[in-house]
Amino acid sequence: MSTFGTLFRVTTYGESHCASVGAIIDGCPPGLPLVAQDVQTQLSRRRPGQSNLTTPRDEKDLVHLQSGIEHGVTLGTPIGLLVRNEDQRPKDYSETDLYPRPSHADWTYLEKYGVKASSGGGRSSARETIGRVAAGAIAEKYLKMAYGIEIVAFVSSVGKVSLPSVASPPSQVPDDEDDVVEDALSPEFVELLRTVTREKVDAQPTRCPHAETSERMIKRILRAKDANDSIGGTVTCVIRGVPAGLGEPVFDKLEAKLGHAMLSIPATKAFEIGSGFRGTQVPGSRHNDAFVRRADGGLGTRTNWSGGVQGGISNGEDIYFRVGFKSPATITQPQETAQYDGTPGVLAARGRHDPCVVPRAVPIVEAMAALVIMDQVLIQNARKTASSLLPPITTLPPTMVKPPKAEGEGEKKQ
Amino acid sequence: MSTFGTLFRVTTYGESHCASVGAIIDGCPPGLPLVAQDVQTQLSRRRPGQSNLTTPRDEKDLVHLQSGIEHGVTLGTPIGLLVRNEDQRPKDYSETDLYPRPSHADWTYLEKYGVKASSGGGRSSARETIGRVAAGAIAEKYLKMAYGIEIVAFVSSVGKVSLPSVASPPSQVPDDEDDVVEDALSPEFVELLRTVTREKVDAQPTRCPHAETSERMIKRILRAKDANDSIGGTVTCVIRGVPAGLGEPVFDKLEAKLGHAMLSIPATKAFEIGSGFRGTQVPGSRHNDAFVRRADGGLGTRTNWSGGVQGGISNGEDIYFRVGFKSPATITQPQETAQYDGTPGVLAARGRHDPCVVPRAVPIVEAMAALVIMDQVLIQNARKTASSLLPPITTLPPTMVKPPKAEGEGEKKQ
Amino acid sequence: MSTFGTLFRVTTYGESHCASVGAIIDGCPPGLPLVAQDVQTQLSRRRPGQSNLTTPRDEKDLVHLQSGIEHGVTLGTPIGLLVRNEDQRPKDYSETDLYPRPSHADWTYLEKYGVKASSGGGRSSARETIGRVAAGAIAEKYLKMAYGIEIVAFVSSVGKVSLPSVASPPSQVPDDEDDVVEDALSPEFVELLRTVTREKVDAQPTRCPHAETSERMIKRILRAKDANDSIGGTVTCVIRGVPAGLGEPVFDKLEAKLGHAMLSIPATKAFEIGSGFRGTQVPGSRHNDAFVRRADGGLGTRTNWSGGVQGGISNGEDIYFRVGFKSPATITQPQETAQYDGTPGVLAARGRHDPCVVPRAVPIVEAMAALVIMDQVLIQNARKTASSLLPPITTLPPTMVKPPKAEGEGEKKQ
Amino acid sequence: MSTFGTLFRVTTYGESHCASVGAIIDGCPPGLPLVAQDVQTQLSRRRPGQSNLTTPRDEKDLVHLQSGIEHGVTLGTPIGLLVRNEDQRPKDYSETDLYPRPSHADWTYLEKYGVKASSGGGRSSARETIGRVAAGAIAEKYLKMAYGIEIVAFVSSVGKVSLPSVASPPSQVPDDEDDVVEDALSPEFVELLRTVTREKVDAQPTRCPHAETSERMIKRILRAKDANDSIGGTVTCVIRGVPAGLGEPVFDKLEAKLGHAMLSIPATKAFEIGSGFRGTQVPGSRHNDAFVRRADGGLGTRTNWSGGVQGGISNGEDIYFRVGFKSPATITQPQETAQYDGTPGVLAARGRHDPCVVPRAVPIVEAMAALVIMDQVLIQNARKTASSLLPPITTLPPTMVKPPKAEGEGEKKQ
Repeated sequence: MSTFGTLFRVTTYGESHCASVGAIIDGCPPGLPLVAQDVQTQLSRRRPGQSNLTTPRDEKDLVHLQSGIEHGVTLGTPIGLLVRNEDQRPKDYSETDLYPRPSHADWTYLEKYGVKASSGGGRSSARETIGRVAAGAIAEKYLKMAYGIEIVAFVSSVGKVSLPSVASPPSQVPDDEDDVVEDALSPEFVELLRTVTREKVDAQPTRCPHAETSERMIKRILRAKDANDSIGGTVTCVIRGVPAGLGEPVFDKLEAKLGHAMLSIPATKAFEIGSGFRGTQVPGSRHNDAFVRRADGGLGTRTNWSGGVQGGISNGEDIYFRVGFKSPATITQPQETAQYDGTPGVLAARGRHDPCVVPRAVPIVEAMAALVIMDQVLIQNARKTASSLLPPITTLPPTMVKPPKAEGEGEKKQ
Repeated sequence: MSTFGTLFRVTTYGESHCASVGAIIDGCPPGLPLVAQDVQTQLSRRRPGQSNLTTPRDEKDLVHLQSGIEHGVTLGTPIGLLVRNEDQRPKDYSETDLYPRPSHADWTYLEKYGVKASSGGGRSSARETIGRVAAGAIAEKYLKMAYGIEIVAFVSSVGKVSLPSVASPPSQVPDDEDDVVEDALSPEFVELLRTVTREKVDAQPTRCPHAETSERMIKRILRAKDANDSIGGTVTCVIRGVPAGLGEPVFDKLEAKLGHAMLSIPATKAFEIGSGFRGTQVPGSRHNDAFVRRADGGLGTRTNWSGGVQGGISNGEDIYFRVGFKSPATITQPQETAQYDGTPGVLAARGRHDPCVVPRAVPIVEAMAALVIMDQVLIQNARKTASSLLPPITTLPPTMVKPPKAEGEGEKKQ
Repeated sequence: MSTFGTLFRVTTYGESHCASVGAIIDGCPPGLPLVAQDVQTQLSRRRPGQSNLTTPRDEKDLVHLQSGIEHGVTLGTPIGLLVRNEDQRPKDYSETDLYPRPSHADWTYLEKYGVKASSGGGRSSARETIGRVAAGAIAEKYLKMAYGIEIVAFVSSVGKVSLPSVASPPSQVPDDEDDVVEDALSPEFVELLRTVTREKVDAQPTRCPHAETSERMIKRILRAKDANDSIGGTVTCVIRGVPAGLGEPVFDKLEAKLGHAMLSIPATKAFEIGSGFRGTQVPGSRHNDAFVRRADGGLGTRTNWSGGVQGGISNGEDIYFRVGFKSPATITQPQETAQYDGTPGVLAARGRHDPCVVPRAVPIVEAMAALVIMDQVLIQNARKTASSLLPPITTLPPTMVKPPKAEGEGEKKQ
Repeated sequence: MSTFGTLFRVTTYGESHCASVGAIIDGCPPGLPLVAQDVQTQLSRRRPGQSNLTTPRDEKDLVHLQSGIEHGVTLGTPIGLLVRNEDQRPKDYSETDLYPRPSHADWTYLEKYGVKASSGGGRSSARETIGRVAAGAIAEKYLKMAYGIEIVAFVSSVGKVSLPSVASPPSQVPDDEDDVVEDALSPEFVELLRTVTREKVDAQPTRCPHAETSERMIKRILRAKDANDSIGGTVTCVIRGVPAGLGEPVFDKLEAKLGHAMLSIPATKAFEIGSGFRGTQVPGSRHNDAFVRRADGGLGTRTNWSGGVQGGISNGEDIYFRVGFKSPATITQPQETAQYDGTPGVLAARGRHDPCVVPRAVPIVEAMAALVIMDQVLIQNARKTASSLLPPITTLPPTMVKPPKAEGEGEKKQ
């Protein structure tokens, strides 16, 4: 439904042409400094009209905080917020309304609810993500202040134009004899994950932080635009500084929650964490992440094919994952299809639409990542605090118990 | 945590060496014929020791139904069930216990809980999936009887050995100019999805329903086994006969729930539905699934790149998705790694372990798929029944309302 | 937290002096005719300033529907709504701020969150209930249209002034020998439950539908007001027309959900259903509700000490319960108490406050009742629809199966 | 449904005549010493056959722990447990099966599910509470070890025989002029709440810790037994040592959760906390609990009419509440009633049944109380730990912020 999270929860409302879209964020830790600008920054990264690659409709998307904050500090009570829709008219009737848009939500919404918004998918509109981005910005601010966690997403491919570091495809010919051809990730990509920032991402209109690739992506997007067509792509996200121990076995493993979150974003069809699909081709002896002692004395891993998650639980290494966005369904090319009643015909949608959504999807991916991590932090804190009030365990073999010294230190640093 | 689902819920318990593993299934519709064999069949497909490709430990995994059923009929009350662990001894201490197994859950469990099972990951053991498979078998029986829904999973790749129909990789050279090279799915693969059965799947020890590919997979697995190594793979699952309208916008879209479910299975790292990652490279004009009038008068789609889900809601076409399983972490090759306390050393695990888990993962994938669909069926039924008790809508433009005729018919057939 | 319900969910936000208070209602059946006035009516019954018995602050409490509705029909998507706070200034500092108000939420909020709203309890303000009342009005409209369900609450006592029909106390002297002195409910009270309407309730400023008692209640309230004191009371609620079968064993029995809902209303301290505490004194032989054949052929009960719920499940009889509201904590009499730092002193609160909240609590009780019933209706519908798709049961003894004829009929009428 | 709790969750299964009844307890803090006897003690207090006041069926109710524990220490993973039913035969058919037992769950279960257990209410059997008691015993052990929390319930009335300390009824004649007649609680009762122990409770077969009253209760119960009748009563519970800050505004106020928990116990019809219904008659000026500085420097209250909860949040004082249990529905007196098909007749139930359930309800009330407190402790810990990682608040007026000193101290002692 429209609520996400257990202890840190966001509930959203709003269609594309109703009075406003908004959200209630429940469970925000009290005492967090928070002003509208903290939220506005990410909302502005999400809104359309930021470059000639996106739809020209320039909505201001100003957030109005309603509750849960006084004098710039959160009270621990729910934060209500909303963004007004500038275009609130229910859509005029047109001949195109006789056609459910192919691969869009028009028809399935009608099947599901028996009624649908005049604007078509309505709730499936990208405007619904405003509430997510706002909530994510709040979660992110907390995670940054309390743990130094950094979340950065970027465009890793548009169509077949891909960051060089991940472009190396799996060896082309299915090879039964030899799988030792390449690693899942190039060293350049690993370095990128460690160093990429939002500033570097936003320096390119595509939000691909590699200038040359970005140029080629721009061409690819403009080619789609000129053809009244659309093109998909992928967004990669890295979360740095996450403490070990997040993720709830067995059904709420960290990758399960991240996958759920990402696949709830409109137009997503694929998710992989760490080495992902490519990793399935690498033998265990090469895929396993060996342990090493870190500089701070704790354990780390030499490689990070796991993507920072083992057994469904974060291990303190960088978490990274990739999300696949299909090519937008709404295109202005004529399409041979059928009307709601089955009558064959040709649909020619009007208006201007994003030929490629991945640049704008970047802050949405970051927001959903923040929501997942935030919720898991709270849940794990509940457990750790509870355990810390018990007397030390003396009856178990030492290999079954975490040494008490390690418990106290580095709570924030892992 | 250990509960999955909203109206149809499974809660599981059990580690690898405790007294038993089991589950409570809550929300099963009353009046369903159910005997132990319904559950046992899938449990037996899951258990080890079925061929020389899997671990030789042959556990019987006999299910004991405890409640919720009388005279072979479900009462609507919770169904308790359990499978005894034959090997219930807490593990003996050994030098290997000083080492967290690389890419396994040993270390993260200890970080998370502060204590861990003597057997290592404990709850991360594959035995935990017994409860899921049992619950899934019950859901599946209902879905079959009430809707004729069929769920079939199969192994689609082992390492780089892939079903030919999906083997065609995306065009090798990233091509900025031309993306009209291949479709995401070959016609053979589409045909396979339509016709594959569990019988065909189980006819091969790999559970890959294509004999020739299966032979090559066997070789690949045996090669890993001989090398004391392991290899990953992918499982593809198709769900046929699902009614349109399942999936709850916005956070519980059908692909989000499926992704969550699949990524909660041990060793999974990737999920894609429909055309998935490959579909991100196909322009909208070719990727969109045009509508056509079906034989029964309703709407269907000409192609099915969407994988049966549009806008997060099932559209009545076959749902299919692919899950990536990493190469098993437990290998008996010596591995250079570190002990819990950071001391470098070499870990040489003992015992026999599955060199490849995907054949045994097949019924687990089916089970999780059944749990998702079952829960969504119940939730959508609640809505449809509620709406059906309201008077017909007369105040909306006709394009906003589903024609009443279509509502009544084909509830089960869509 | 701030979300209530499983399939029909309300999430609220807002403190007393923030920008607005509001709610998101998720899971409303699509196709329900709904306009702002449907919600406004109940909000206006809740707002202050309706008579000289309540606080003179007259806020308009106009509701603004934001989403989920087009052309006066619900779309099935979340309904966002808000009511602006007319007084949005954070409170000025005053000496009274040094004192946590006795029996108010000031101190516990500070203990819980570490910070608190400048206005004191903030979220504990009665303004928070606006979201509940709005959501309840929507639920209620559905229940009325689809099932003919009627929900009417009324004031049954103020201080010791009680409706005569329930005034008869339990026999005064604890009597070990004879408990057959009185029934729990007088015939007049049973008749009142059957016939009371909101019109009759609102005809009295106290919302006690018995004119003479209402007069005495007015005097009692005015006496409290004149003394700068306050007085508590009880609200009784009846729900007529509820179908049999609602309530989810075992933890979500219908009385458990109703109790939860009622005890979440500010200032409530007690809840009883049916004969309640008094019924504990009546032997089973007199307390049991014998079955009788109803006019429509189904089963009913001769008496209704159970309050319409048996085994946690509605039985089709009227559901009635009573809720106890303590005397309001905020009084303007000087009170000897202590400051936050423990310094003893005298608190003399200023301003005008409700000397008695029960008249205004009436629509809040109705709203929470509607939310519970609505959610349970949806959950039970999911089960019934699911069961109805299975073949008839032939293997059970006839006493274990509901006759199929009874299934179809009277879905709405029971 | 059959799951209770958010972070500390119990899920139960089992009917009266199935193979076993059991539970899965999820979210137990790791590192808690736990052996079967910890659970068995409370199970044995719950089981029948403890005195001639209860049903003579003496079941052993031995608990079998299945998982989540090694070497007597919890692992943090789910604890599965079960108790075998000694009488597992589905009931024989008898003429009484034609009759739904008045005020029992037979008919409502059949209405709800369309089928029912051969034994009648099945899941409504008191045996279902075994899982709750087991789970509660685990929660209780944690709360005792970590916080020193004590939970003691006792029988406060049987029929009209009531503890003298609470027997004083409200002034008998509804008095509009004078309500200053008595306090809600006698000093003796307050003292009892402070000092009562399980030992004192169990010293009496009735579990009423006042010997003289207990004698009269015994007579009352035996009188019911001799008459083949039954009698109800009330159980009062006190929870001592609860830290301030528990309970989640707004829908999950602590009294709302406690009320929900208690009203989910079979046969309960009423709940009140603190002064409860009686407190509604006491003016605010007398009902308010003035603050005083405690010996440890923190704030306490002079009186405790609030029952330890203000604004839905615990304030560190003793929490106490009262639960009303109706007279058991199953009696062996002949009852004029109707068969399932409406045919009038006389039902004469056979067998031996508890004439009064309140003595056995004592450990069930304690268990549900422990489950609520445990869950709220975890949730509040999550928040407090999260807030503690933020920098000190400097921008708020001092009256809005809890002094940092108070935060650190007395975490366990409040």
